[in-house]
Amino acid sequence: MTTDSALTSEQILSAAEDVLRQFGPAKATVVDVARTLGVSHGSVYRFFPSKAALREAVTERWLAQAHDELRFIAIEAGPATERLHRWLTVLFAAKRKKAFDDPQLFATYMTLVGENSHTVDAHIGTLIDQIAQIVQDGMETKEFRLAHINSTARAVFEATAHFHNPAHAASWSDPAADERFEALWKLILGGLAAKA
Amino acid sequence: MTTDSALTSEQILSAAEDVLRQFGPAKATVVDVARTLGVSHGSVYRFFPSKAALREAVTERWLAQAHDELRFIAIEAGPATERLHRWLTVLFAAKRKKAFDDPQLFATYMTLVGENSHTVDAHIGTLIDQIAQIVQDGMETKEFRLAHINSTARAVFEATAHFHNPAHAASWSDPAADERFEALWKLILGGLAAKA
Repeated sequence: MTTDSALTSEQILSAAEDVLRQFGPAKATVVDVARTLGVSHGSVYRFFPSKAALREAVTERWLAQAHDELRFIAIEAGPATERLHRWLTVLFAAKRKKAFDDPQLFATYMTLVGENSHTVDAHIGTLIDQIAQIVQDGMETKEFRLAHINSTARAVFEATAHFHNPAHAASWSDPAADERFEALWKLILGGLAAKA
Repeated sequence: MTTDSALTSEQILSAAEDVLRQFGPAKATVVDVARTLGVSHGSVYRFFPSKAALREAVTERWLAQAHDELRFIAIEAGPATERLHRWLTVLFAAKRKKAFDDPQLFATYMTLVGENSHTVDAHIGTLIDQIAQIVQDGMETKEFRLAHINSTARAVFEATAHFHNPAHAASWSDPAADERFEALWKLILGGLAAKA
């Protein structure tokens, strides 16, 4: 039970995730979320004006998991090569964890992600900006050859889709996945690195 | 109408594709295929022992479209750099054509592909072998740096998934898709190329 006055958007988002996990994306309603919290559905609507807005916010929160760690890697000091490798590794690990720790919730989010292409685009934009930051640092330290920063960042993101896009999740449990990730990394690093 | 004695597996596969397009993968039956051809379903079973076998053969044929052109590029003479670029371009164009020329059939095949993971794995294996052939040629001519051929070929295939894996089809109509493909190609070529 939550009193209306103490209600936070974070509580609503957590409850919405629980409801989605329990009922699935087709059946979950705002009334279910309100009932879980012991508040009226009007209270939920004060935070999220529509069911669609609530679903979008839940999707955004889910996509943003692991973002803090990634954002930190993008802005910290240190060689760009090591940071970019670590950034990609952390992203892959985070996606893999989501896919395998709770496969049913993962499937639910695949549905939500399909509904909220604008949120997904913004999410991808944020990730590419972080890569661009590292790429720029690497060009400044002459670790990477000079090239158009944003195109290069996007190419790195797209080149690694196999290891972060949920469409490829089925291959992430392959015993050779880590080895293949490293082979891909070597290829990409070769493409980025300044010629000796 | 087809007489039983003149029936070919190619006719059955074409009829099966028509039936799948018309009824969708959930409803299409072997009886529908036989009726389309004007033969008994026993005649169809003489070529394909089960509905599953027929669906798998249809999937395989669909996946193999454009293979002849790709296979030719893999074995022809000429600089490996140009051949690899052309091979990837032809693959992307073929996938894009399938996705946009007949979106409903494409969706049908996405269902079939999900059912026939063995066929898909074999298809991917064939494609990676073709890349490996070009990569090997490029190492021999010293266009590409020396590396493990098969790992490199797989890395090239995975790095370009954004432009051939149907899971990414929604992004192929983006006006910037070709430009992004070229940015990715530059990154990959940089990774393959022997240092000057």
